[in-house]
Amino acid sequence: MDLKTAKELLMKMQAKASAYAHAVDLLSFDGETVAPPKTVSNRAHALEILNEEIYRLTTSEETVELLDFLGEHKEELDAKEKRMVEILSRDLKFMRSIPMDEYIAYEKLLVEAGEAWKEAKNNNDFDHFAPFLEKVFAAVKKSAAYVDPSIDPYDFWLNEFEEGLTREFCEKFFEEIKERIVPLIHKISERPQVDDSCLKGDFPEFKQEALSYYLMDVIGLDKDHVGLSTIEHPCTISLGSHLDERITTHYHRENVASSLYSVVHEGGHALYDTGSADDLVYTVLDGGVSMAIHESQSRFYENIIGRSRAFIEWILPKMKELFPEKYNDVTADELYKAVNRVEPSFIRTEADEVTYSLHVLIRYELEKKLFSGEISVRDLPTEWNKLYKEYLGIDVPDDTQGVLQDVHWSDGLIGYFPSYAIGSAYGAQFLAKMKESVDVDGCISRGDIGQINEWNREHIWKYGSSKTPKEILEIALGGEPFSTDYYVNYLEKKVSEIYGL
Amino acid sequence: MDLKTAKELLMKMQAKASAYAHAVDLLSFDGETVAPPKTVSNRAHALEILNEEIYRLTTSEETVELLDFLGEHKEELDAKEKRMVEILSRDLKFMRSIPMDEYIAYEKLLVEAGEAWKEAKNNNDFDHFAPFLEKVFAAVKKSAAYVDPSIDPYDFWLNEFEEGLTREFCEKFFEEIKERIVPLIHKISERPQVDDSCLKGDFPEFKQEALSYYLMDVIGLDKDHVGLSTIEHPCTISLGSHLDERITTHYHRENVASSLYSVVHEGGHALYDTGSADDLVYTVLDGGVSMAIHESQSRFYENIIGRSRAFIEWILPKMKELFPEKYNDVTADELYKAVNRVEPSFIRTEADEVTYSLHVLIRYELEKKLFSGEISVRDLPTEWNKLYKEYLGIDVPDDTQGVLQDVHWSDGLIGYFPSYAIGSAYGAQFLAKMKESVDVDGCISRGDIGQINEWNREHIWKYGSSKTPKEILEIALGGEPFSTDYYVNYLEKKVSEIYGL
Repeated sequence: MDLKTAKELLMKMQAKASAYAHAVDLLSFDGETVAPPKTVSNRAHALEILNEEIYRLTTSEETVELLDFLGEHKEELDAKEKRMVEILSRDLKFMRSIPMDEYIAYEKLLVEAGEAWKEAKNNNDFDHFAPFLEKVFAAVKKSAAYVDPSIDPYDFWLNEFEEGLTREFCEKFFEEIKERIVPLIHKISERPQVDDSCLKGDFPEFKQEALSYYLMDVIGLDKDHVGLSTIEHPCTISLGSHLDERITTHYHRENVASSLYSVVHEGGHALYDTGSADDLVYTVLDGGVSMAIHESQSRFYENIIGRSRAFIEWILPKMKELFPEKYNDVTADELYKAVNRVEPSFIRTEADEVTYSLHVLIRYELEKKLFSGEISVRDLPTEWNKLYKEYLGIDVPDDTQGVLQDVHWSDGLIGYFPSYAIGSAYGAQFLAKMKESVDVDGCISRGDIGQINEWNREHIWKYGSSKTPKEILEIALGGEPFSTDYYVNYLEKKVSEIYGL
Repeated sequence: MDLKTAKELLMKMQAKASAYAHAVDLLSFDGETVAPPKTVSNRAHALEILNEEIYRLTTSEETVELLDFLGEHKEELDAKEKRMVEILSRDLKFMRSIPMDEYIAYEKLLVEAGEAWKEAKNNNDFDHFAPFLEKVFAAVKKSAAYVDPSIDPYDFWLNEFEEGLTREFCEKFFEEIKERIVPLIHKISERPQVDDSCLKGDFPEFKQEALSYYLMDVIGLDKDHVGLSTIEHPCTISLGSHLDERITTHYHRENVASSLYSVVHEGGHALYDTGSADDLVYTVLDGGVSMAIHESQSRFYENIIGRSRAFIEWILPKMKELFPEKYNDVTADELYKAVNRVEPSFIRTEADEVTYSLHVLIRYELEKKLFSGEISVRDLPTEWNKLYKEYLGIDVPDDTQGVLQDVHWSDGLIGYFPSYAIGSAYGAQFLAKMKESVDVDGCISRGDIGQINEWNREHIWKYGSSKTPKEILEIALGGEPFSTDYYVNYLEKKVSEIYGL
């Protein structure tokens, strides 16, 4: 094989992988958004066969030979090609370590587990979900051991979602933020509570949908390449490449804030993905690099932008236009305080910025204990409720609002949760850096997201996955080390002003 | 190879093909219904690669060997297996006759042609579409010559959509119906016109959507397996198997009849597909056998059922509930006459039952002339308008309402149109047969579609593609030969009563 041919094959292989990914991702997306209710087994049949094809393609002898050859000629590759070979070799190692029949069975299990989770959540029936979740946990532990038996399996999975992430980092991170956030919540609880009744009422779906499309414009999404669908559990997905992105939301008729902030959160993910440089398309370098960097963007737009005073002033006229009877007499200050009300609650995705990281911490602690064998899947509801009492001081009323609330575990996303909190902290430090060159509040006040998006594009988005998360942090922070102080200082400052602490 | 292994491979091969078909069909369906507007090239990229994979699978040496082996052991196969081998061998012959690069290029062309058609239709710009349509016609002519140069290429394509159909049959068919339908239209034009103002007004989309779901229930569709989406040009699609079927509609705010009859028409297709016996799933025998049999069902539900007096009496209360201001004072007789108003018009899919077949005849004549070289693609608008004047006596105002109205040609469906008219005629003869054992009007009057669907299931649906269209006709008609008389008699009787002829 000569180098030129090898490089061409490398691009061709990635293009093929992107086409298969497009197909299987669309099958899942369609299943969650459009498909009739009882079509799961039909979809699972197609997914099983296509995943088997993907497995064959990824692990074929030709692929092994190609990556070996390119690995031996590293010095003749450019930086992007090197990174492609690195990522593909890691994926290859992962895939070849897992026997094909187990890989196929696992993909099939996820489809079934997803359905079982939905049913269990709807019926507050953890027992229905437990056997599937047991299998998922067993499978991810087993695959970690297949790929690298020398690493602790939970460390293995943390690293899968956030290259370089370890339990050691998580321990220190959560310790530092817990130390300052728990007392902050206590202080707030002693102050008069903020009134958020302006968020509750009757908000017809078609009007909330109009608000969603407005918000997509506000944060600068390109609707020619980003679609909006409704779903049980909002998420964002790239189909084939960053040229086709789908965000999703869920409308709650009595609560306008839920979908509003879903759209801005998922919109942040979509901004990041669609911001990949166009020459990364149909390669493994296309789209966001890791979960924490991804969440740094989604939670940046949801909270730092979306829950700022200037943003509320920006969107209030639209709220008045869509829901005049509700918002005609509401001031920006009232709405600002309402969307920033701090109060321990049951649902992570609906939580305020201050208590949010404690929701994440609870999931992190449970995953750790499940991996170490300290608890079993059957203990989850009890342990979940115990930790909610301990950290947030609340009694979880049922599993639907407790351990069954998140889609992640049913989807095999174990070790993913910490990135939500870490990403939030990254975002606060990015804000500080951004403010050195961008008048952030001024931009939002002028109704112009342009410079903010441009800073993110230049420092984060355009790289896609061509840099490691660590390199992205270095670029965005100009070499300054990461510190939780930015995050906690940001939270303290904001809520002190709102609650008069 | 032993026979047992060969039979297993036969089933496995079909299962794999169904998974790929699921993927590519879903990519197209998503593109037409949900995808953001400028994601075409991204989708074309995936489709190109997946179609290449399908081509490889279908034409591989293993497939050839397998089908050869099974062909040599025909006498040891059961009827279904024989039919599978027959269909797969025909497909294999088709695929292997066409060079792979041309096959891939054609699939890509269809994606581009689809987009060009949409734009051309929106902008009344035939010139924008013409170069793509020229390529489509050239490609289908060429592929007919590749597969069987001994057959006239138009006959080849007629047979592709309706096994056994020839120009000879079409000539006789259209001659017979034209002879009686043209004078019928003349007679009607001399009578006072029926008032259809009760179909025109302001019908908000969300209420029309509620009507769609109601109609799906009325005709007995299983919403657990049949979905409803909106689209530019309504169609029905099976995804992977008959277990996941999607019908589509297009809401016109000012005209309630358009979507109403789209839903019932597409619903007829979906009833047929989903009625396949469950043991046909993931094989080539799953789903409807041909276009004329398909249209016999869709147009049966749309017209023979949906435009009957008893059906109108059935759905009128729902119309009154959804649109009280419009329908409170409308009688069943008024609505019945309105939905059966006969009047030459521009749009085939909106045409009444009497003029409908002339719309089809026009397309048939144009396709014939394009294949014979008598006219070229550039002549189409002029020739189209000339024939509308000649057969329907109307002046087509623009190409959007003329030659650009149908999606078929952009989709490579050339030779498909005749099946609409032939299927309508089949349906009328099926009705006569059905009435020998089912009190059709009585069932509809009681609001019970059950026995009607059961007759169709037993005589048509359950066979899927395991019988040829000719065999289905024999079963459904109890051996009686096909005659256009049933169709024209049905039309004459119905409109004579309405127009007092």
